[in-house]
Amino acid sequence: MADKPQKLWGGRFAKSTDKAVEEFTASVHFDSRLFEQDIRGSIAHAKMLGKCGIIPQADSEKIVKGLQELLSDYRQGLVTFDPSAEDVHMNVEKLLSAKIGEPAGRLHTARSRNDQVATDIRLWMKDEIDAITRLMTEFQQVLVDTASEHLDTLMPGYTHLQHAQPVLLAHHLLAYFWMIERDKGRFMDCKRRADVLPLGSGALAGTGFPIDREFVAQELGFARISENSLDAVSDRDFISEFLAAAAISMTHLSRFAEELVLWSSPEFGFVELDDSVTTGSSIMPQKKNPDAAELTRGKTGRVFGGLMTILTVQKGLPLSYNRDLQEDKEPLFDAADTLRGALSVFIPMIATAQFKPDRMRRSLHGDFSTATDLADYLVRTGMPFRKAHEVVGKLVAECIASSKGLEDLTLDDLKSIAPELTGDALMLLQPENSAASRSIPGGTARSAVEKQLQAAKSLLSVS
Amino acid sequence: MADKPQKLWGGRFAKSTDKAVEEFTASVHFDSRLFEQDIRGSIAHAKMLGKCGIIPQADSEKIVKGLQELLSDYRQGLVTFDPSAEDVHMNVEKLLSAKIGEPAGRLHTARSRNDQVATDIRLWMKDEIDAITRLMTEFQQVLVDTASEHLDTLMPGYTHLQHAQPVLLAHHLLAYFWMIERDKGRFMDCKRRADVLPLGSGALAGTGFPIDREFVAQELGFARISENSLDAVSDRDFISEFLAAAAISMTHLSRFAEELVLWSSPEFGFVELDDSVTTGSSIMPQKKNPDAAELTRGKTGRVFGGLMTILTVQKGLPLSYNRDLQEDKEPLFDAADTLRGALSVFIPMIATAQFKPDRMRRSLHGDFSTATDLADYLVRTGMPFRKAHEVVGKLVAECIASSKGLEDLTLDDLKSIAPELTGDALMLLQPENSAASRSIPGGTARSAVEKQLQAAKSLLSVS
Amino acid sequence: MADKPQKLWGGRFAKSTDKAVEEFTASVHFDSRLFEQDIRGSIAHAKMLGKCGIIPQADSEKIVKGLQELLSDYRQGLVTFDPSAEDVHMNVEKLLSAKIGEPAGRLHTARSRNDQVATDIRLWMKDEIDAITRLMTEFQQVLVDTASEHLDTLMPGYTHLQHAQPVLLAHHLLAYFWMIERDKGRFMDCKRRADVLPLGSGALAGTGFPIDREFVAQELGFARISENSLDAVSDRDFISEFLAAAAISMTHLSRFAEELVLWSSPEFGFVELDDSVTTGSSIMPQKKNPDAAELTRGKTGRVFGGLMTILTVQKGLPLSYNRDLQEDKEPLFDAADTLRGALSVFIPMIATAQFKPDRMRRSLHGDFSTATDLADYLVRTGMPFRKAHEVVGKLVAECIASSKGLEDLTLDDLKSIAPELTGDALMLLQPENSAASRSIPGGTARSAVEKQLQAAKSLLSVS
Amino acid sequence: MADKPQKLWGGRFAKSTDKAVEEFTASVHFDSRLFEQDIRGSIAHAKMLGKCGIIPQADSEKIVKGLQELLSDYRQGLVTFDPSAEDVHMNVEKLLSAKIGEPAGRLHTARSRNDQVATDIRLWMKDEIDAITRLMTEFQQVLVDTASEHLDTLMPGYTHLQHAQPVLLAHHLLAYFWMIERDKGRFMDCKRRADVLPLGSGALAGTGFPIDREFVAQELGFARISENSLDAVSDRDFISEFLAAAAISMTHLSRFAEELVLWSSPEFGFVELDDSVTTGSSIMPQKKNPDAAELTRGKTGRVFGGLMTILTVQKGLPLSYNRDLQEDKEPLFDAADTLRGALSVFIPMIATAQFKPDRMRRSLHGDFSTATDLADYLVRTGMPFRKAHEVVGKLVAECIASSKGLEDLTLDDLKSIAPELTGDALMLLQPENSAASRSIPGGTARSAVEKQLQAAKSLLSVS
Repeated sequence: MADKPQKLWGGRFAKSTDKAVEEFTASVHFDSRLFEQDIRGSIAHAKMLGKCGIIPQADSEKIVKGLQELLSDYRQGLVTFDPSAEDVHMNVEKLLSAKIGEPAGRLHTARSRNDQVATDIRLWMKDEIDAITRLMTEFQQVLVDTASEHLDTLMPGYTHLQHAQPVLLAHHLLAYFWMIERDKGRFMDCKRRADVLPLGSGALAGTGFPIDREFVAQELGFARISENSLDAVSDRDFISEFLAAAAISMTHLSRFAEELVLWSSPEFGFVELDDSVTTGSSIMPQKKNPDAAELTRGKTGRVFGGLMTILTVQKGLPLSYNRDLQEDKEPLFDAADTLRGALSVFIPMIATAQFKPDRMRRSLHGDFSTATDLADYLVRTGMPFRKAHEVVGKLVAECIASSKGLEDLTLDDLKSIAPELTGDALMLLQPENSAASRSIPGGTARSAVEKQLQAAKSLLSVS
Repeated sequence: MADKPQKLWGGRFAKSTDKAVEEFTASVHFDSRLFEQDIRGSIAHAKMLGKCGIIPQADSEKIVKGLQELLSDYRQGLVTFDPSAEDVHMNVEKLLSAKIGEPAGRLHTARSRNDQVATDIRLWMKDEIDAITRLMTEFQQVLVDTASEHLDTLMPGYTHLQHAQPVLLAHHLLAYFWMIERDKGRFMDCKRRADVLPLGSGALAGTGFPIDREFVAQELGFARISENSLDAVSDRDFISEFLAAAAISMTHLSRFAEELVLWSSPEFGFVELDDSVTTGSSIMPQKKNPDAAELTRGKTGRVFGGLMTILTVQKGLPLSYNRDLQEDKEPLFDAADTLRGALSVFIPMIATAQFKPDRMRRSLHGDFSTATDLADYLVRTGMPFRKAHEVVGKLVAECIASSKGLEDLTLDDLKSIAPELTGDALMLLQPENSAASRSIPGGTARSAVEKQLQAAKSLLSVS
Repeated sequence: MADKPQKLWGGRFAKSTDKAVEEFTASVHFDSRLFEQDIRGSIAHAKMLGKCGIIPQADSEKIVKGLQELLSDYRQGLVTFDPSAEDVHMNVEKLLSAKIGEPAGRLHTARSRNDQVATDIRLWMKDEIDAITRLMTEFQQVLVDTASEHLDTLMPGYTHLQHAQPVLLAHHLLAYFWMIERDKGRFMDCKRRADVLPLGSGALAGTGFPIDREFVAQELGFARISENSLDAVSDRDFISEFLAAAAISMTHLSRFAEELVLWSSPEFGFVELDDSVTTGSSIMPQKKNPDAAELTRGKTGRVFGGLMTILTVQKGLPLSYNRDLQEDKEPLFDAADTLRGALSVFIPMIATAQFKPDRMRRSLHGDFSTATDLADYLVRTGMPFRKAHEVVGKLVAECIASSKGLEDLTLDDLKSIAPELTGDALMLLQPENSAASRSIPGGTARSAVEKQLQAAKSLLSVS
Repeated sequence: MADKPQKLWGGRFAKSTDKAVEEFTASVHFDSRLFEQDIRGSIAHAKMLGKCGIIPQADSEKIVKGLQELLSDYRQGLVTFDPSAEDVHMNVEKLLSAKIGEPAGRLHTARSRNDQVATDIRLWMKDEIDAITRLMTEFQQVLVDTASEHLDTLMPGYTHLQHAQPVLLAHHLLAYFWMIERDKGRFMDCKRRADVLPLGSGALAGTGFPIDREFVAQELGFARISENSLDAVSDRDFISEFLAAAAISMTHLSRFAEELVLWSSPEFGFVELDDSVTTGSSIMPQKKNPDAAELTRGKTGRVFGGLMTILTVQKGLPLSYNRDLQEDKEPLFDAADTLRGALSVFIPMIATAQFKPDRMRRSLHGDFSTATDLADYLVRTGMPFRKAHEVVGKLVAECIASSKGLEDLTLDDLKSIAPELTGDALMLLQPENSAASRSIPGGTARSAVEKQLQAAKSLLSVS
């Protein structure tokens, strides 16, 4: 039948595929991104087929050579994909066939697209995780460098976006260091679990050919082979896990983004972002907008959405492979691109940001953020904390009523609430002294933050 | 500075944009889809500016003519977008500028990208909803036609995927008719709420130029103008609502898809999908897979994900426009494409499906699905329902123990459980009679289903 | 068997239910919330059964009386639920049975839990939507009242959290009025679609008893009866739609919450929330935290989560009823409670909030937020807008370099950038004049905002 | 003021909390679940305060004794919580105060609810993960036991819910073993990352008291202390990670649930679930429904929803603690309960399930599931796989046309498609031989499955 497209699986079919169905089911527009991985996997597979005598050694070599040429063509931009060939695997097979003829038809021996695509994605993901964690390390380095410059920059520490207690900017910036450190850990755990070769699982049941799965695993750099063929072609856990890790990372970046947006506002004025990382308005000539930060915050949504997508896709599917699983790749690629993009803008954004120590320090004036220190002082005189808290709370209320800050109080003012207070207490009402007193491990005193910085640097030196 | 790209908003900036930031913030690769709407909006705006004397009438005409030419160029595939110009709006302005020179610089008078993009999306969505509801109507027609052919096809009705009571296939198919009918209602409500012109809201505060918003609304076919400029540039409710409507529609199609997959399995064998809507396997020559149905089920995930995306994007944003909102378009476009794609494959898939009445009827044999009818019969003799339920339940247990179906019982068997039973009761154990008895409105009796079909046809005749 | 609990459906079962299964599948701990609706539905059903002669009239009356007593018991707190009776329906039947004996066993004639629960939820939801929209109207009234007090309060209007153009606080507050107005519309549309009686659909196929569905609909106040029994017992669209409407409402409240948090920060200082709607810290005596606003923002997450839950539950379910659908109620109840809770705290929070006009006005000083006005002025002199934008952009850059605000410029300064500028231009640089000029419909000029306020009041007067 | 409730933080407040706000912000109805952890944490804290001389040793001892008594009261059901005391921490402090008087007021020295609650949740989660992984191991044991009984049970292996190739039921069941194994890995990784003591981070900045954090970590069994106080009070990664792990686990259980539902249908008939794990219908006496499986599938939705909740809560929050974070506990508790509940029903459900080997074997008849074996045979004769696939595809089409199965073919039939075929090929068309041939690692041959089973048992023996 002239009209019937030559599907590689078309033997038992009497009619050609409906146009709408062909479009709806096609994947080559996104899975062609796995072209290199598909070729790598096929080269390893073809070598093994030859080595094990499943196909003639000569054909194996022709296939390998043909695939290598295809890869080279691809890198030179010479490859065009054919949507009617459905997916990247069928496209590669067609292109190879055009290049080397009949031996191409032997490549698909002892495998299926089901184990093939699972292999491709795992290969891709392992590389991608390496790239992401490298970017994260680079970002951590920027945080460490910037924190090092702000070991004496005092700013309000916030809870509920209210001034809580004074902290060092270095301490604040390093909080993100540890978030990223955990992010890296999650991605590495994900990689470890993804580092399993599914090839050899066939469509679902393995294969009757005497293949050498360990050889292929070694060729492709996988740590081990899968234990159950049904599981191997159905398993998309590693994609869900990747997306969960990415979603958590994005929450961190969204929090930092929120702060950059806040701090860039005229009311805060704690930072000025560089012209190179901000954009203007089509109508308001004065505008300089923290767009990269806002978009990072906004793009958090698409990564959450992608995670929801991949989870929903898998819900309630019977074993083993179902076509629904084709929907795994777009959210994965999108999350990886989004996270890398966000890290790539944060690196220059923080590296070039001008933090404003004066403005931060000024913001501490009259903000009562040393009230806890005063309560703690009372505790040291023997007052139970709960009582001290109440006494100071009332003092704050009186100060507000008379428009005073704590630092405006005299020793007499203090003595009126607790006679045992001495001049030392006045000292504590200075933000610098408040921060300096928090020298326990993890605290905001310069001494503690220096140790923290040292720990951070040690981690970077081995990563 | 030679290196500084000519951003249209670049007056106050001293440095060019970082490459990573430019890539991260660019939108022209997806918002160019709004090209036609952007041109339509700009033509209406330019006409109004001329009419109100805000720009010279001659310039207004040049702009309109230039935009019309651009539209024509675009439709001929002659337009290339420049990613460094960020978005579709700036690209249009640049292209117009290249075409008509200085007057192009007057087009952006009295508007901002903030009200412009909101207008573009609303224009796009209104058309899109019309296209979606048309497809839905087409699908409903297929359902009505197919149901009409199966007014005598009896099948097991399921609850918990267990046989519950016999139903007509026509009744089952029409269940989807009403789901789609509600879907259309939701989309029409969404369209009604989206049918509001934001243009004239400027960046956020309106404009000082004496524009005529009602004129523009009329030109563009909007039902009314927005009431509050801050709201107008911040509002993405209509996108959330569209995605919610699409997500609910997809749950319906996913349910139908699940049934087609189930029914295509050898164990069920209730339907054979046409070769033209199924695909094969790369390895297993015998396979004919219901891929279009599976993918519809799977793609439900991406629409849920898109809904999550747009909701997350908006969570916790202060007024008015924030760059996060740029993330509104991709999930919207994707959901619209997915839903239209799914409807487009369901239409031929159902129209060409071969349902198997014999197989369905055979499946009713020995399945106890008329047990309720027997209990109801006992109720008519005066037994309380709860007692009748228990009596019949025990009878079923005995039948199972002796490997009999209800239809294998004799009148004596029946009398042994309830002496008042007569020969009529035997009749009720036939699935045909069971179904025929459910003739109340909405029931599965042929008479009731015919009325239902009539109601469905009436709705289609006016849609 | 002594150990076997008396399940009302237990006839065919030989063993009692596993304890873990009983716990896992029980629903009475949440569906007992439908107790009143269940009774109402049963009363209408029982009346109809008597009226149609399906059960003896005397039994019908005993049932109705018994149910009314149960309702009265319940309202007096005298009803205890039995988890081993699974759900609210079986509990009611048991309680009724204990009260009136055998006739209770006739109540379940011609219905199933499947159509019963669908009826209960719809009854509940219709009332709930009325309660929610009433709260929304109350909140809108607070917004209108507060806006009326701030028709002369000028504040920075923000885009990207940067100062964009001056706006009236009244205008800002009213933006939320229109969001809520759309929210009400969505809930009313949802109610309209939910206003359909499913009772009479039986387990899935209707019933063979000659019931009068229209009578029941009228008794219960439903606008119409369902058209297809399979659809009627499977349909949870109205719950998805309710949750989508609630999720969108929560995005609005989360945005307002974000602003209250921001504006309560010492850096903004635009509002002071009342002591009665804020809380303190266990450790920091000075703290006064905008907890109610923060929690509204946070609880947005649970409503999004609930929406994802209900959508996921339905994905890929075959017809008709499946037990998965039991998972519909908890997210529904939770979303309703959360939204009502959030509205209930916003009403006093806004009604008692002290906005700070002085602080807002001060924030406009030196912020360049009238730059667009200057550009627009140049346009009126004949300069193309794009050129004017650039000229003013450069002027802003120069001002920043020399630490000046636009309002610090002299006429000579202005003339140096555009000789045609006159003294009028200086006027425009005042925020008051900028805002006053935006008098087009929907703009921020007092005249426009007064019209907007009038429109808002008109809507309230009819709601 | 008589009306003003005695909030422990109330010093600076002039008014009592609004009733709606109190209800909206209260958490004791769910965080009281952390009562034991709160007490444990407080005991360790109090000991340390005494040891370090921060409070008098005598007071430390009184506090510890008081707390131990409270714990004992609680376990005896003697503790009532007071919602007006907001949360579990304040309730404990109040109860302690009632018990021991003034020293109770010293307990909150050098800590905040912010670091306290983070400690409580981590303690709770660590125990919970142990409980979950124990249940998972128990479930794996059931899978291993059941698989061991079905090493000769042949069933259709499915892709796209079409028969693909014959597999062993043991192989199919073990697929779930490996999914659960990965689930355990994810939970253990999560536990490792959660195993960090935040106490000592104070409200956000650490504390000025000379506390010994390592001592507390040791007392409570934490592996290490947190490195940054701001991060420590803001970090909810471990909850997101827990929910992601739970969501992935639920996808696995939902897939198994789907299969149990399918296999329980009359059309499949592959399994009969035990009466003890199924339930009946209120109306249809014959029904026996796989409710526990359905609900597992349905409850997957709520865990996905919970994950979305916790992610959304964190999106865009500035540092450090914000009240939004209170929304972390309910989704966590709910996911843990749901997952434990689902595992608890799966264990008896699989242990008591009666699989039906005869029915499974019968389903393989005439299903063409050995077509790949025939194609592979042709490959062994030298035909390229792609050609062999086509040849067999056509043969299948002819068989369908003539209503034959592959096993009905004669040697002559085979030779007509490929003359080189011999009698061996006929053997391959038997499902038993097909499965037996797939003996590579991970394949479905009995020999391979036995090795797999061995590997599974080894893992269990060390877990």
